[in-house]
Order: sequence, then C-alpha cells, then structure tokens
Amino acid sequence: MSLSEFDIIRKYFTNIGYRRDDVQLGVGDDCALLRPEPGFDMVVTVDNMVLDVHFDAMTPVDCLAYKSVMVSVSDIAAMGARPAWLTLALTLPEADEKWLQLFSKGLHEVCQETQISLVGGNLSRGSLNIATQLTGLVRPDSVLLRSGASAGQGIFVTGNLGDAGMGLLSHQQRLNELDLDPLAKSQVRARFYRPTARVDIGFALHSMATSCIDISDGFVADLQHLLNASEVGATIELTNLPVHPIFHRVFEQVGQWRHPISAGEDYELCFTASMQYIPQIQQLSKSQGVSITQVGIVELQSGLRLTLDGSRYVAKMSDNEINGFQHF
Amino acid sequence: MSLSEFDIIRKYFTNIGYRRDDVQLGVGDDCALLRPEPGFDMVVTVDNMVLDVHFDAMTPVDCLAYKSVMVSVSDIAAMGARPAWLTLALTLPEADEKWLQLFSKGLHEVCQETQISLVGGNLSRGSLNIATQLTGLVRPDSVLLRSGASAGQGIFVTGNLGDAGMGLLSHQQRLNELDLDPLAKSQVRARFYRPTARVDIGFALHSMATSCIDISDGFVADLQHLLNASEVGATIELTNLPVHPIFHRVFEQVGQWRHPISAGEDYELCFTASMQYIPQIQQLSKSQGVSITQVGIVELQSGLRLTLDGSRYVAKMSDNEINGFQHF
Repeated sequence: MSLSEFDIIRKYFTNIGYRRDDVQLGVGDDCALLRPEPGFDMVVTVDNMVLDVHFDAMTPVDCLAYKSVMVSVSDIAAMGARPAWLTLALTLPEADEKWLQLFSKGLHEVCQETQISLVGGNLSRGSLNIATQLTGLVRPDSVLLRSGASAGQGIFVTGNLGDAGMGLLSHQQRLNELDLDPLAKSQVRARFYRPTARVDIGFALHSMATSCIDISDGFVADLQHLLNASEVGATIELTNLPVHPIFHRVFEQVGQWRHPISAGEDYELCFTASMQYIPQIQQLSKSQGVSITQVGIVELQSGLRLTLDGSRYVAKMSDNEINGFQHF
Repeated sequence: MSLSEFDIIRKYFTNIGYRRDDVQLGVGDDCALLRPEPGFDMVVTVDNMVLDVHFDAMTPVDCLAYKSVMVSVSDIAAMGARPAWLTLALTLPEADEKWLQLFSKGLHEVCQETQISLVGGNLSRGSLNIATQLTGLVRPDSVLLRSGASAGQGIFVTGNLGDAGMGLLSHQQRLNELDLDPLAKSQVRARFYRPTARVDIGFALHSMATSCIDISDGFVADLQHLLNASEVGATIELTNLPVHPIFHRVFEQVGQWRHPISAGEDYELCFTASMQYIPQIQQLSKSQGVSITQVGIVELQSGLRLTLDGSRYVAKMSDNEINGFQHF
C-alpha cells in the first residue's frame, strides 16, 4: 500500500514536538502562524526545489533562484502577510562559478523586489537541492486563513489560470510554435520562469476576504483545500475562468478545460469575499494592474462542482490533476 | 581554481537582497539575529544533512532525525537563546514506512526534549536530504556573539572534546574493539548519535561570557572563527583539553592530539569570560552536571598557538582538520 504525500504528513509529521503556546497554527495552512508577543504575528513557510522534479536542467539558473524564493513569497502573500527574512539550505554537486553567479543574481533580484533579506544559509555537497524558508510579518487582525469562507460569498482569482502551465509546455517545446505569437510566448514563459506573487493584493484583502490560498498545485486542488478547511462547497463555471487569449488557440494541445483547472505554478491568489465588496475588489484590481475575476460562489453543499455553459462538466483527470502533484 | 565553502558564501551569498532595519546580524555568526520589535530578538539558523556526506546508510534513522535538529539547537545555544520553532524540508527517495516511523520518532523526541514545535515542512521526492531551520528567542541584552573576547580572558569549553569523533570511528568500526570497554563505547557513540546541545549553559552564560561559539567543525576551526571575529589570538595547552578517559587508550588510533582539536560534531560550547567569573562558572558546571574546563587564555597577538607540556606543538593537519570540513 503506498502512502500519499498528505498521508505521510498527517501520519508522521503532525503534532511533532512540544506544544508551545506561541504557535497559533502549525502544519496545515499556507504558512504556520506564530505569536511570540501580543499584537505581533509571524508566518513561516518552507519549500524545496529538486532537479528533475520541480525543474529541469534547461531552466535558466537565475530564474531557478528567483522562482525558488517566489513560491514561498506566494505562501506568505496568501496569509495577508509581507515577507521579511529568508534562509537557504543549498546542496550542490559542485562549486560551478558560472552557476553560482547566475543563482546569486536571481536570488538578489527576487529578494530586492520583495524586500527580503537573506539572513542565513547552509551549503553542502550532494544532489542539487534548494530548500528555502521564509518568514513574514503580519498584524494579528490581518491574517488570511484557508478557513472562513461562507455560503453565498464569491470566489475570486487574481491574474490568469494556466499561464505558467502553458509556459512550461512551451519551455518543454511541447506546443506547436505556429500557434504562438512571440509576445504571447514570452508572456506565458515569464509566468513560468519568473512568477510574481501577489503580496500587495494579499495585504490589501484583509478587510475584505474571508479566506485565501495561493494557487501552486492547480486551481481545483487548491480550491478544494480552501473549501475543506472552510467546510463548504462551490460551483465553478469554466467559461468564467480567466485565461490568456492564447489558451483558446492551443485548447486541444494543452488538454482542453483540464488545463486551467489543473496546471500548477501560477502563484495567483484564490480568495472568497462577500459580494458587497465587489466594487472595492474591482478598485483594487485597477490600482494593482492585475485582473481579479469572480469564478464561482461558495455553497453550503460540500464538494466542488464544475459546469461548462451551465451543464455539469466531468473532467477526465488523473489523480495528480485533481489533487495536485503528489510526490509519493 | 577551486572555491572553498567560505569563498562561495562570501562571494555569492553575502548582502543578498533588501537591506532591512530589523536584521541586526545576517550571515556570519552561529545564527542570524533579528529584531522585529524593540525588546524582542529572534535568532535563526539553518542546516542540512546529506547521505554519505553527513551520515552513512548505517546510521539509525531515529538518531539521524534527532541529530538533524540538535545541530541547529546547538547554534541557537551558542547565541544564548532558547529554541522555539522548527521547519523541515525533507527530500526522500521513496515513502518507506519503517524509515518514516523511526524518523518521526527521533524528531518527536528531540523536539520534546528541547521544547521545540515543528511548525511547517515540505516533502519532495529525490536524493535523501534533510534541511532544518530553527528559530530561537532571546532577550536583546542576553545575546552571545562570536565577537567580544578580550586579551586576558579565559577560554572555556563544556564537556569533552573528541568524544563524538571517537563515536564516529567506533560506528565505522575503525577502532580496535579490544581497547574499548562497553560503557566507554556506548558513551562516545551516544555523543555521536545523539549529541546534547548545551542550551541551559548558553542561556546562563549571558551575564558572564564575552563571546561564544558551538564546536561543530572541530575545536581549532571553531575557536579560530571566534578569535577572528573578536580580533584577538590565543594559546592553548593541549594537556588541558578535556578528553574522555578512553582517549589515552586509543591515542595512536585516533591520530594523537590532532583528534580532540580537529574532530567535529561535539556540539559543545566554547566561550570566553573574565577570570573573575571562574567560581560562578564552576557553580554552573556543578548545577548542570556538565564539566566546564579552562583550556587557554585570550591574547592580543592574533593567531592560535598550540603548546604540548609548554612546548610549541605543530599539528600535522590537513586543511580540513585546520579549517573544519569544507564541502567544496
């Protein structure tokens, strides 16, 4: 019997160690939530990137460093927090100066853009492995959790769904080049190589959103985490999903509607909010220059229902597409 | 031209990212020192363990988990802080339940003993790699740094030097079993498999010590870091070094005096303090049940001088023995 990633975490890595009063929330949301002093909260997240699992040898090294950090920034953003301090545990097969120069460049760029300091690290020799740990700061009354969504509230997403997935397929040369104009190609590749986490939007949402998650594993998988944590359900109309104009040209190549609902690594935010906030959400979208789209409604009935032009849509999806990529 | 580990850190990982006012001390001591609020400091350290570099396939898995965390606890102790929150980025080749059970057990034990909560993690498939990041809490006036030692102060170490190194050789079956009585063997192996970081001693030292470092790379290598950071030198008399009684029986096998000055992984503390505190230091040693030994004196003249029965001792040591293990 094989264990899934979530089984392993539940069975072997939950309630480990001492029960500290300053841990508000441990394993289970985008970040842990820590309250060392009244009035002052911290959020903590950890990620790692493994060669041939999270990236391939063709990935530009500066982009690899950039993205290694940005995936953690996205978790911080989903909590309504701002990133602050980064540590890096880097395992390298060799000390290749050209590689190190590019990695250092990308690391500096992402940290500058997101106002992060690299405060510590560890360097070892071995198979390439990049482990990043990022701490963010947040006011206790501004924290966004996955739980909190209620029936009748709208479900919103920032940016487009599936752009990074099309960028990955283009990077792997698995899209017909004839269907890609150069601008569109560079746009979707940029979302794959150098995603932008939505920190300012996450921060601004605290007065409006009732729950929030970042979309890393794929829209359906991540929305299900949010719905489960909130003990609610939802219906999503596929034609409402925000997609890049090019999606319709490569519709068959990318796997039709399965693509925007299952492609991961967009690092957009998915959140719920009362409908009364739609004008403020539109204003936020405009001021940030990032689209924010309502894609469905929270419902009492548990489970996630997909419709296409109003009719029930049954996605022929693999387990990984439904539940997000599973390492085990 | 090959780059050393320290060269890589200096050249590619120093002053990375945004310059934040809340970072009191970044890369360069046992931990980074962060001050998010006045009156409240945090220390952060990161380590990783790679198969066939930091441990071998014969290492008991619960001990591996235990030690992965304790090496970070030791860095926290060397800052005079107490550990609080752990995150873990774990890369595994497969989901082996027996392995996971033992790992989880060792992780829980070390976290219970040191009052740490595991607050987050990440699980990936790939070559076995254990990256731990540990945050500790400390009052700003209680922080111990590597800098601060002055000429005339004593140099002290907790526990014994070289016990873990003899434990490693015993684990590798590279010691003549005839020279090891079973109790001594279990004692030195315990220091190798399950070291105990000196948290309570580090915490108590804040009113006495002028500088502190933990001994992970080897006594000479780590003392040199402390002396360099403090811009002072020292003379150490080898016969004053605290060693396990068994050391003298395996003196030739372990490499004579090179062993206690270069064997790593003892996770003892090395600190400096004014001689006037010797009675209090003896009292602390007694109350903690851990020996604390004066091994030398801080001197104005830079550099580290070793003597054996008063005569200058020239150690025939490799670069790794002098400078600590270098991954590159």
